[in-house]
Amino acid sequence: MKKVGVAFIGFGTVGEEVFKLLKESHLLGDNKFEIEFEVHAIFVRDINKKRIVDVSDIHITSNYLDIINNPDIQICIECMGGAAANKMVEIVEAAIKKGKHIVMSSKKGFAHNMSYIIDLASYYNVQLRFEATVGGAIPICRTLMSMSSTDDISRMYGVINATTNYVLSLMEKGDIDMDKAIDIAKKKGITENDSSEDIDGWDAAYKMKILTGIGMKVDINCSEINPVSMNTYKNEKMFKNTIIRQIFYVERNDNKISYYIGPVELEKTNMMYNVRDNYNIVFVDSRSSGTRAYYGKGAGGKETASAMHEDLLDIIKHNYWLELSEKAICEKLNVNKINLVLS
Amino acid sequence: MKKVGVAFIGFGTVGEEVFKLLKESHLLGDNKFEIEFEVHAIFVRDINKKRIVDVSDIHITSNYLDIINNPDIQICIECMGGAAANKMVEIVEAAIKKGKHIVMSSKKGFAHNMSYIIDLASYYNVQLRFEATVGGAIPICRTLMSMSSTDDISRMYGVINATTNYVLSLMEKGDIDMDKAIDIAKKKGITENDSSEDIDGWDAAYKMKILTGIGMKVDINCSEINPVSMNTYKNEKMFKNTIIRQIFYVERNDNKISYYIGPVELEKTNMMYNVRDNYNIVFVDSRSSGTRAYYGKGAGGKETASAMHEDLLDIIKHNYWLELSEKAICEKLNVNKINLVLS
Repeated sequence: MKKVGVAFIGFGTVGEEVFKLLKESHLLGDNKFEIEFEVHAIFVRDINKKRIVDVSDIHITSNYLDIINNPDIQICIECMGGAAANKMVEIVEAAIKKGKHIVMSSKKGFAHNMSYIIDLASYYNVQLRFEATVGGAIPICRTLMSMSSTDDISRMYGVINATTNYVLSLMEKGDIDMDKAIDIAKKKGITENDSSEDIDGWDAAYKMKILTGIGMKVDINCSEINPVSMNTYKNEKMFKNTIIRQIFYVERNDNKISYYIGPVELEKTNMMYNVRDNYNIVFVDSRSSGTRAYYGKGAGGKETASAMHEDLLDIIKHNYWLELSEKAICEKLNVNKINLVLS
Repeated sequence: MKKVGVAFIGFGTVGEEVFKLLKESHLLGDNKFEIEFEVHAIFVRDINKKRIVDVSDIHITSNYLDIINNPDIQICIECMGGAAANKMVEIVEAAIKKGKHIVMSSKKGFAHNMSYIIDLASYYNVQLRFEATVGGAIPICRTLMSMSSTDDISRMYGVINATTNYVLSLMEKGDIDMDKAIDIAKKKGITENDSSEDIDGWDAAYKMKILTGIGMKVDINCSEINPVSMNTYKNEKMFKNTIIRQIFYVERNDNKISYYIGPVELEKTNMMYNVRDNYNIVFVDSRSSGTRAYYGKGAGGKETASAMHEDLLDIIKHNYWLELSEKAICEKLNVNKINLVLS
């Protein structure tokens, strides 16, 4: 087993779920890379907080330089959430400059600084993955990145805020209003204490910006997005004869981008009619492939963690190739060591 | 622009669509690999048949050795269809043994010889792609291959025969029986002359075998699959109060596989209820990601061609990495040439 040193930046629900996956990842799939993850440090705001996983033998710190300056840490797993976006960007920046690979999950900070972070990672020749920022368990970022070099995407739309979708589904099913549905979602851990970013469409806006950036290579300015809040649909009586969803829609005509985030009334023949609970769906229209859609759970620590775990393995795969080729060349040339960089 | 030599093995609707995509592929996406495809030869059964694309400056041959023995051909694009499965396997085998990379589309021949072809390609260190064999425009093979090394898939199900789905959709919409619907599908080019492989479930069976092989690493014996034909639903009257779909279902419990292919009655709340016309959907349940689904057009030359084009670009990317690293090493060591193999 080859050991890979990692550290967590932030350690809430998502971080703890990723931690669990890492501990059992040698049991999953065929694990042909024979990797064992070693967690060297965890950066948190409150080092005394009780954790649901056993971290007694791991260095818990509120000084992120402990991670940045530790040469044994090759990959940083960022799970800070939206509350401290600026701090998150500061830490990720420092980590990239020290050559550490990054797996990100915090959409707000990433959306606001997307071009900068991507360019920085490229300049420092660092692997950057951010699948978990959009669509939870749906591998939509990877899909769009692959498509954007072989196809032209003209339109993307769907449901990308699982919290709002869960709340609307609850209102449809039972005879409850939005406030009550939000309370239930909070108790189930589907939404955080402040659900206004979800209901008002800001969470979907950040995600739409990320999708547009990678799928259409257009950088939307966050301050120009005006999502329409779902707040006008607070009353369950409105759902008697129809289904309402929070939909994002972005379209490119030549190089002009137009977009919408907010309520849309759906007919029963629409695929999104049956996207319920905390599920997401993203439709992608492209020149070569027509309409495709990707569906999966959008919220929940477990699904986000699974996306981050796939990202981690993707970095491992990339580096494994590098190593394999180095080894082959060293043997061929009868030398001990060369340094090989693929980008 | 770097030139990549390719040849077609078979040249029906799909082949011609791939040909068109290759001719315009430098216009698509960001084309960062700066590739120009050069078609050196086309293997066909009837060299005098009229083609809808201009192939006047290309060597058309009914002797496949012209392709196998041409060192300028690096990638073979197989579009022979299901009618000549044995011949197809014979040609692919010969091409692999000469070190040519392969992009496949014929599901029948591939399903019957899947393990052998994959092992052969691995032995000869040849890149093999077969996205187009299942699900048309849906990138399901790539997705399952990536998942199978990081996750455990317990269940797959959905609609994978677009022809049957198109026929059933027509019956639902209009007041027509199956035979009439099949006639319309034929005129639209959605089905070939003999639609019995579709209606009887054999087409879905081959695809299920391929998905199970790559997603669950289990090789189902084709002769043990007993698909249930849709033939008992020939009468449109049966669709008055319900929707019927041809569904494939495969489940793994420990190492025991159970499966079903045939008619299933769907409720309106089911996601598959709104999968109509020539669309496909594949649901994948896994340990880490819960339920995910992939939706897109399943039949049609254009969609299949798009899948093959993505496969081609995927091989190019792989080889581009190889070249980049070779170049970097040559410069570092001040030598002219090394041979580097990544697998």
